[in-house]
Amino acid sequence: MYRSRPSGNLDNRALSFLSSITEDADLFYYDLLGSQAHVLMLYESDILSKKDTIEILKGIDQLLNHSDTLKEYADPASEDIHEMNESAIIKITGINVGGKMHTARSRNDQVVLDIRMKLRDELNRISSQLLNLIKSLLVRARKNTDTIMPMYTHLQQAQLGVLSHYFLSYCFSLTRNFERFSELYRRTNISPLGACAIGGSSMPIDREKVASLLGFSDIVYNSVDATTSRDIMIEFSSISLITILDLCRISEDFIIWSTSEFGFISLDDRFSSSSSAMPQKKNPDPLELIRGKTAVIEGNLVAASSIMKGLTSGYSRDLQEIKPLLWKTSTTLEGSIEIMDSIVSTISIDQNNMYSASATSYAISLDIAEQLIKDGNISFRLSHKVMGAIVDYASRNGNISLSSLTIPDITVALKKINFTHPILTVEKILSIIKLITPENSIKFRKTKGSPNKDEQIAMIDYIDKMINDYEKDLELRLNKLYLARDHLDKKIKQLIYKPS
Amino acid sequence: MYRSRPSGNLDNRALSFLSSITEDADLFYYDLLGSQAHVLMLYESDILSKKDTIEILKGIDQLLNHSDTLKEYADPASEDIHEMNESAIIKITGINVGGKMHTARSRNDQVVLDIRMKLRDELNRISSQLLNLIKSLLVRARKNTDTIMPMYTHLQQAQLGVLSHYFLSYCFSLTRNFERFSELYRRTNISPLGACAIGGSSMPIDREKVASLLGFSDIVYNSVDATTSRDIMIEFSSISLITILDLCRISEDFIIWSTSEFGFISLDDRFSSSSSAMPQKKNPDPLELIRGKTAVIEGNLVAASSIMKGLTSGYSRDLQEIKPLLWKTSTTLEGSIEIMDSIVSTISIDQNNMYSASATSYAISLDIAEQLIKDGNISFRLSHKVMGAIVDYASRNGNISLSSLTIPDITVALKKINFTHPILTVEKILSIIKLITPENSIKFRKTKGSPNKDEQIAMIDYIDKMINDYEKDLELRLNKLYLARDHLDKKIKQLIYKPS
Amino acid sequence: MYRSRPSGNLDNRALSFLSSITEDADLFYYDLLGSQAHVLMLYESDILSKKDTIEILKGIDQLLNHSDTLKEYADPASEDIHEMNESAIIKITGINVGGKMHTARSRNDQVVLDIRMKLRDELNRISSQLLNLIKSLLVRARKNTDTIMPMYTHLQQAQLGVLSHYFLSYCFSLTRNFERFSELYRRTNISPLGACAIGGSSMPIDREKVASLLGFSDIVYNSVDATTSRDIMIEFSSISLITILDLCRISEDFIIWSTSEFGFISLDDRFSSSSSAMPQKKNPDPLELIRGKTAVIEGNLVAASSIMKGLTSGYSRDLQEIKPLLWKTSTTLEGSIEIMDSIVSTISIDQNNMYSASATSYAISLDIAEQLIKDGNISFRLSHKVMGAIVDYASRNGNISLSSLTIPDITVALKKINFTHPILTVEKILSIIKLITPENSIKFRKTKGSPNKDEQIAMIDYIDKMINDYEKDLELRLNKLYLARDHLDKKIKQLIYKPS
Amino acid sequence: MYRSRPSGNLDNRALSFLSSITEDADLFYYDLLGSQAHVLMLYESDILSKKDTIEILKGIDQLLNHSDTLKEYADPASEDIHEMNESAIIKITGINVGGKMHTARSRNDQVVLDIRMKLRDELNRISSQLLNLIKSLLVRARKNTDTIMPMYTHLQQAQLGVLSHYFLSYCFSLTRNFERFSELYRRTNISPLGACAIGGSSMPIDREKVASLLGFSDIVYNSVDATTSRDIMIEFSSISLITILDLCRISEDFIIWSTSEFGFISLDDRFSSSSSAMPQKKNPDPLELIRGKTAVIEGNLVAASSIMKGLTSGYSRDLQEIKPLLWKTSTTLEGSIEIMDSIVSTISIDQNNMYSASATSYAISLDIAEQLIKDGNISFRLSHKVMGAIVDYASRNGNISLSSLTIPDITVALKKINFTHPILTVEKILSIIKLITPENSIKFRKTKGSPNKDEQIAMIDYIDKMINDYEKDLELRLNKLYLARDHLDKKIKQLIYKPS
Repeated sequence: MYRSRPSGNLDNRALSFLSSITEDADLFYYDLLGSQAHVLMLYESDILSKKDTIEILKGIDQLLNHSDTLKEYADPASEDIHEMNESAIIKITGINVGGKMHTARSRNDQVVLDIRMKLRDELNRISSQLLNLIKSLLVRARKNTDTIMPMYTHLQQAQLGVLSHYFLSYCFSLTRNFERFSELYRRTNISPLGACAIGGSSMPIDREKVASLLGFSDIVYNSVDATTSRDIMIEFSSISLITILDLCRISEDFIIWSTSEFGFISLDDRFSSSSSAMPQKKNPDPLELIRGKTAVIEGNLVAASSIMKGLTSGYSRDLQEIKPLLWKTSTTLEGSIEIMDSIVSTISIDQNNMYSASATSYAISLDIAEQLIKDGNISFRLSHKVMGAIVDYASRNGNISLSSLTIPDITVALKKINFTHPILTVEKILSIIKLITPENSIKFRKTKGSPNKDEQIAMIDYIDKMINDYEKDLELRLNKLYLARDHLDKKIKQLIYKPS
Repeated sequence: MYRSRPSGNLDNRALSFLSSITEDADLFYYDLLGSQAHVLMLYESDILSKKDTIEILKGIDQLLNHSDTLKEYADPASEDIHEMNESAIIKITGINVGGKMHTARSRNDQVVLDIRMKLRDELNRISSQLLNLIKSLLVRARKNTDTIMPMYTHLQQAQLGVLSHYFLSYCFSLTRNFERFSELYRRTNISPLGACAIGGSSMPIDREKVASLLGFSDIVYNSVDATTSRDIMIEFSSISLITILDLCRISEDFIIWSTSEFGFISLDDRFSSSSSAMPQKKNPDPLELIRGKTAVIEGNLVAASSIMKGLTSGYSRDLQEIKPLLWKTSTTLEGSIEIMDSIVSTISIDQNNMYSASATSYAISLDIAEQLIKDGNISFRLSHKVMGAIVDYASRNGNISLSSLTIPDITVALKKINFTHPILTVEKILSIIKLITPENSIKFRKTKGSPNKDEQIAMIDYIDKMINDYEKDLELRLNKLYLARDHLDKKIKQLIYKPS
Repeated sequence: MYRSRPSGNLDNRALSFLSSITEDADLFYYDLLGSQAHVLMLYESDILSKKDTIEILKGIDQLLNHSDTLKEYADPASEDIHEMNESAIIKITGINVGGKMHTARSRNDQVVLDIRMKLRDELNRISSQLLNLIKSLLVRARKNTDTIMPMYTHLQQAQLGVLSHYFLSYCFSLTRNFERFSELYRRTNISPLGACAIGGSSMPIDREKVASLLGFSDIVYNSVDATTSRDIMIEFSSISLITILDLCRISEDFIIWSTSEFGFISLDDRFSSSSSAMPQKKNPDPLELIRGKTAVIEGNLVAASSIMKGLTSGYSRDLQEIKPLLWKTSTTLEGSIEIMDSIVSTISIDQNNMYSASATSYAISLDIAEQLIKDGNISFRLSHKVMGAIVDYASRNGNISLSSLTIPDITVALKKINFTHPILTVEKILSIIKLITPENSIKFRKTKGSPNKDEQIAMIDYIDKMINDYEKDLELRLNKLYLARDHLDKKIKQLIYKPS
Repeated sequence: MYRSRPSGNLDNRALSFLSSITEDADLFYYDLLGSQAHVLMLYESDILSKKDTIEILKGIDQLLNHSDTLKEYADPASEDIHEMNESAIIKITGINVGGKMHTARSRNDQVVLDIRMKLRDELNRISSQLLNLIKSLLVRARKNTDTIMPMYTHLQQAQLGVLSHYFLSYCFSLTRNFERFSELYRRTNISPLGACAIGGSSMPIDREKVASLLGFSDIVYNSVDATTSRDIMIEFSSISLITILDLCRISEDFIIWSTSEFGFISLDDRFSSSSSAMPQKKNPDPLELIRGKTAVIEGNLVAASSIMKGLTSGYSRDLQEIKPLLWKTSTTLEGSIEIMDSIVSTISIDQNNMYSASATSYAISLDIAEQLIKDGNISFRLSHKVMGAIVDYASRNGNISLSSLTIPDITVALKKINFTHPILTVEKILSIIKLITPENSIKFRKTKGSPNKDEQIAMIDYIDKMINDYEKDLELRLNKLYLARDHLDKKIKQLIYKPS
């Protein structure tokens, strides 16, 4: 409205098609915060007079803190949040004063500034939630270092393990995502303001000062790069996807573990749903939704990337469509981490079912095969063949559990492959099979990072320490932002209320 | 709330994470419409008493038509729209009456019913808008059968054409999308109700009757298929993508044509944007947004497909996430078609610029080459070589336009490739070059579907007739829905108001 | 090489980057077939002399049928298959003859012609395989109309059903894909040839004749549309995705059903994998790969769509990248349908496990609840509550199966919700529970499309008839192509061998 | 084949469907390298005897270095590369020796090892190419600090700039991708070997030793994490996409700049294509392909992510499909960076066309508006309005260039908005307009990171230094790998050839 449009206004349908005002609601606060710093810098660079500066800052203060002022002056039919805010200031202070707020600035650098400020906060929020989830996993791991269960590959029982080992695996995997978000934070926390439309300004503005007032660690140097690039948005979408893919895998495991057929865990009533038609049901709906939301975050990444594909350098309006995708992704991810944290903390674990599935499982075969190698000095492949024959026999004869096999059983099984061996006699083999109980299976496992109890404890300590370090890093980051914000507030209050 | 949840309610954050109530707002109307038909069928199948039927139908009527009732009884903190509506009816009529509404029904068949009813309406709306856009393109085509312009491949001038030819190409391409949507309509317009949770019911309900009451042409036969399948949603997302990819290509063409460098068209002020910082600018924002929204629709397709990927048969809560994607896609597509229609109808076309770009363009070379073949009976490759040499000469000597070449020019050019020919003398070649004016280029073009004027007129007639047929088909479809709706209304009013 | 490139050849790395020759191998046959028809039409339109025509056709014949000729004349370092083939013909027949083959043609219409011809064949192949798979499902359905099993929603036991019902659901779902491919076939089976570069030709060619010679039902009318549009390729990718999503869901079901915990089916040894380290394992690898390949086909759809996004009208080289995606999608889909067909036909079904899971399942609750409604005329919600209380009691007391409940059990359960009813006494309720055996659960289910045996038989007949019709349609399509091909062959042989 | 498959072999079609042998060709070398280190560690951990170790290492050496041995022993019909290699060794050394190679190892950790080793090399190769491209951009930037041209937003002329500024913007943007790849390198360069199938081994292996022999900086600690996680593969796909999106944007700019309408640059003949039908054309095919390949890399990311979506923990065969996607992405990206490097280095720049487009461009308006603010102390909005009116007048009167405006022109223009001002008289305004020549526009631009010459030089120095540091980092990384490889080779040669 305040712009010099010589002839003809936007068609109403066109305005509604163009408008990002609804999706921009999230940016309202950041947009005004950015304007505060910009105006303060203009003043300190002698571009704005003290009087004009004070009037504009007062106007912004009112918009931010007085909902009545906001209602009166902010036009919800604006094309975007930047126009809405600037128009409101112009209405409050008049064109001769408010008309100066946008000096040496364009929506092109302003919108990226707003996005970077909001993204910074999202990154901190997500990082903090990730650490919470990892801590909840760690709590569960500490309590389940002796909870023996089958481990699956191809969803078939593969080896025996312990439940803590499972929880720890996601501690590791999620900390990598914490790292990725931290690296992205460094790339995000730099200010584009002062790039103007695309090529900077002839006004003597101080880009580094605005950056510092807003808590940024540096500026986005080149003005074309500052207004054109959206790489950090795609990167955010990607890391969010990688992160929720971890939650999705946990969800899938839990959904299957909570079937009546598996019966390993059951969801707390607060985090499961009943059925509208079937009275007996308790459905793992939150886990299913995390799975579904994984796809939504993937879709948002595709949308954001495809928006960029085919564009030329310099701002284009297509970029507007990236913003809602980002915020949808961040709220979706945040909600998913939070709900997963609650679920991990509240599921009840049926250690008996886990144990009895282990006790009758052929998943112990590899352990036995390795013992045969050690005792008989045979090759891995021969040992593999021997155990293959024994398991084949057992499964074809009514799924006999290995520990219930007898001398005649093994004799028949080995005859089929003509296996005889001076040391590995039928009796010896049977004694090895009896030796490898579920408990011994875990105890004999030796490799670093295996389910063996010593390894569990070592990994728990490792994660514990890592989390501690990460929490300190995050606190530091938050503190810097807080201090910058506090400093800016004080400067503004000083000007507004004690304009000596 | 009305469900028999023996122990413990949903955690509040879980409820908010699970809830689809906001996104379901679009389904409110369809959900109640479906319940009307379901209840009427239960009555006519002697499952519900007349008294109970009337009470429930009155309750539904109030929710639909009295916003006060809605406000009083509908709980916005419900898990979804189905629960909200059923709870409201139970609150209005009591559990002993309202508690019967969900007999022989589950949310699993109910939600697919609602989606199919809404999707039907979206398909009809989109189909109608598509026909409008095609008609607008046709209007523009009729007026521009003589507007000569360069046609581009690789964004390089390739051959000369006429502007009507361009508009017509999108008439053809968009009618294919109309066809696709019509085929999908047939697959959509069948009723899943009565499939219940997944395996039907032992109550003697009449699936075909509900289907007919709601204007469906048939039922989704198998109950597993009816509740599990989401293929028509993916198909809708795909066809929407294919359609908006057409609009995206038009947008890209128009964005480039409206640069000051091309200068072929200019957007109407009502459909372009000004700049916040640069007073001289008129930006093609709506076209850029169509381009951006293409990516959004692509992202929605990916999200919907990936939601399905990895699911088992039978309803899972993941499917809830597909709904908002569908409605986002349909409103995005509808807005884009509508805005494109306005833009096509309002751009101003600079025929002079188009002509002068044509007059100096080497894009006429192929026409000349073909004339050389006809006159000299040389091979296409040789002719190609001759024209290549002439154009090379012309472009290296200050981009001489072909029509300004002289005898010496051509002599030098042909010497380079040692071309001599009894008929195609330098003079003859020059006369052919002079013969092929932009106008003759178009006139001599003979093939079916080419820019030649006769072909333009034939294609305009062809499209005109096709559009007519499509409009009749669409009207028929709409009529059937209208009649069913009317019939259902009358039956209900008869019961409610004159329950003899 | 044969093109008039006045100055400088392609850099070698650029040539290798540009070249599509490897991916084009699939098009070799179609490209020459298209050239045969084009040349024949040029001859019949008096553009080529009989002598030149015969020489070119002989050259093509040699390339097609004599691998030595091919090796001698075809240059594998060509930029693409079209250039390779034309160059070979020119080498064989000389520039003055072979140089005429490309008259009134461009690679832009030629490549779309080749793609359409190959896509036609792929569509027919896929359609035929789909019918085979549906028939295999039908065979399995016929044999399992009495195989009672739990049906799942949210992967939790929901209702009882029969295995045939499951197989039939995918018969329905896959026939919809057959339909989609048939609709696409109609859009594919039209010829673009004669559109030339983008704007047709001044040579008096006959577009309809070429189309007919190649078995096409019509031409792609508008020349811009013919060379620019790739909608059928995106549509093909989409339908392929929708189809493989069905196979993916079957795969997921089967993978879970074949765990030792479910134990419903086991894969034939010929279609499962053993483990490199764990001798006991039998892994469902082919099913997992179908699941993985679903994602690959999704990725190909995204790639193809994103290639189109942002392009202008008229051929651009980006389009080259779509071809390998198409062929990768078609071979992947074909392989997946074929392997799924084999798996469906060879899995062994453990009817005992399915039955015993059913016999102890609370999934029978809805049937009991519906019987309570019928016998006691209570509302669905009340009945739901009653059964909820009974199941809650049973599951909390050691997962008692419903059929083992006693009078005291039910008394305690109902006291908790204070349920008393004149008809539905504890004894009556118990008798109803005893009545609803798994067999009766299925028998009492009445709705159309439910697991009830009559419905199973009706659906089997329905599918049977539908398949029959589809097979006839497909045969007709194949026949038309065969006849056209045969006719073209004869015409060419007539010219080449008896050029009277 | 060597595995203990008790009954029945894979169906042939199943084998071909399952087989990854073709796509694994790339892993052949890495798989054997990994086996060398594994065997050496087994020996040094006293699990393998010296004699057995030497025989196996000799076998591996022959496979690696003697193509005849390879042909004789390697079965191309194997299920995958791991099976092929192990089988070959067993055939060469006998089951009793070769059968020991796979001790304490599974394909599940082996395949991730191979992928990580190959990915490491790809990352280094890409990083090196990225630095080369940045250096080429820098060379071009140095030469064009005075090449004035319009800068575009919305593809409309926005402000004036210099060409070096454009090249520098991509130096900045691409170095961020270099950083991302380096961060990923740290996450990639850790060894999963020893995780076995999923839960480690009871054999006393030394995971850190194998890691160190292969040049890894550490191990992937948790064995579930080591075999399940594919996050670095998704991350690689994402960063590749972000990187090629930069190249895509450059391509789009260059394609438009090289139209005859823009005429800013022309591609070297070695990096452009001619037309098969139109003799005059020079098409920017390599740039179009980079644009197309962007979509392909996006599709690969989607495929890889969707493969992960819905999986449970532990290896599943779906993961096999990720490998070819990775290698396709890496070769595509490498080819694209390389070709872009060549194009950037060889385009010819038409500085005259760039200048004349600038001289007549209204893009200078913002500079004039800012000068009005400085001289007249009016608000930015008022100044914007004044310039808007002047440009509107100029464009409506035959697109007069601003520098040609006269006193009467400006008088008329300002009357329309009733602008009068004591300082900013019509004469003053005209003098300001005359002052702001293209040269002064750039000279007066002051902000950090703007097109001003001082800023150009500062940015060139900045990038220069950054590149230097990055080159050193990369060299260090490469050196470490080289030393590890060399050390392993020597150890093996010592054992094989001088087995004292």
